[in-house]
Amino acid sequence: MATQKSTRPPAPAAERPHPDATRRSQRSRQAIYDAALALVGEVGYPKTTIEGIAARAGVGKQTIYRWWSSKADVLLEAFLDLGEQAAGQEAYAIPDTGDLAADLKAVLRATVDELRDPRFETPSRALAAEGVVNEQLGREFVAKLLEPSLQLYVDRLRAAQEAGQVRPDIDPRIALELFVSPLAQRWLQHTGPFSHAYTDTLVDYALHGLAPR
Amino acid sequence: MATQKSTRPPAPAAERPHPDATRRSQRSRQAIYDAALALVGEVGYPKTTIEGIAARAGVGKQTIYRWWSSKADVLLEAFLDLGEQAAGQEAYAIPDTGDLAADLKAVLRATVDELRDPRFETPSRALAAEGVVNEQLGREFVAKLLEPSLQLYVDRLRAAQEAGQVRPDIDPRIALELFVSPLAQRWLQHTGPFSHAYTDTLVDYALHGLAPR
Repeated sequence: MATQKSTRPPAPAAERPHPDATRRSQRSRQAIYDAALALVGEVGYPKTTIEGIAARAGVGKQTIYRWWSSKADVLLEAFLDLGEQAAGQEAYAIPDTGDLAADLKAVLRATVDELRDPRFETPSRALAAEGVVNEQLGREFVAKLLEPSLQLYVDRLRAAQEAGQVRPDIDPRIALELFVSPLAQRWLQHTGPFSHAYTDTLVDYALHGLAPR
Repeated sequence: MATQKSTRPPAPAAERPHPDATRRSQRSRQAIYDAALALVGEVGYPKTTIEGIAARAGVGKQTIYRWWSSKADVLLEAFLDLGEQAAGQEAYAIPDTGDLAADLKAVLRATVDELRDPRFETPSRALAAEGVVNEQLGREFVAKLLEPSLQLYVDRLRAAQEAGQVRPDIDPRIALELFVSPLAQRWLQHTGPFSHAYTDTLVDYALHGLAPR
């Protein structure tokens, strides 16, 4: 999804190292993230190892273990970092212009573009595939990566309920699935092509329903 | 999905063997299907081999190669067979009682039950995970296993359009995703619990829309 909040806490002030060391650490971190994402995309989650990430990033294993306790943790932060880069200067919220359909369409169009970006697609597929058969990992990544972005839709739909644009009896957490899940399934399972026109259609169908009015 | 048509052609009459041989063949086929589904569920698609299936089924490799050209072909037929068993005596259609909501809810409730059946769940997850990262295999299994069952929803929605219960401008192939894809995503990605109440809600939201009427 296009927007994700980082849950990484800032280092406490007392532990902050010298600026040069910070820059070196930052470069190492970025090299480790890049290596982890590239590796998982190439060999899949089961064959991705801390050793392999370290070798590819050109750092020692101990550098990784100083910051993270497992390959799942490294990958989780690498994806959070990737999401922050993709979000760029965008706010961590779905716009509220007062036009719910237009706002949802805009965010879903951006998501379509992001899903097609190979930097995102290859590692995301590898991780999603593992989550399908590894329930614990799947649940952890959903809780930390996917659910925070879904909550942005919940917030936008709640605002629309307050504005009288969504029925008050609707559960926003289920409602968002009417447009988010079809796109997710087409992407994940190759069940059909997706485009801006497709996601626009999903929003129109979800808001206005299939039955005649 | 609950209902799937077999695409396996019957053996031409001239090649039909003696009844005893047919029975033996049928037993071997079933043993091969069972072995293939068990194995893919245990070790995943990449590590499933024709040799492994043959050993587990207690048949020679040549017996498998006589009938199928690849492990993908064996698994495809094994899933078709499993789908036929699950469908039992049910017709290969979604019921049309004249009440679209009730008919869709009934089929989705049956799908919820099927997705929880471990005989179906474990091998299906293994295959779905592979399809996420192996586009060719994913597309083949979607075309041969998933799409035929989705077409049953297309047929039911078309009948509802003719009966004036679905707007004439709706594309049924997209419309069905409003209730099928959320269930698929919750199952595949562990993004949330699912129940009969959940799928009932999806049908109500999809038919009547999120916006006030």
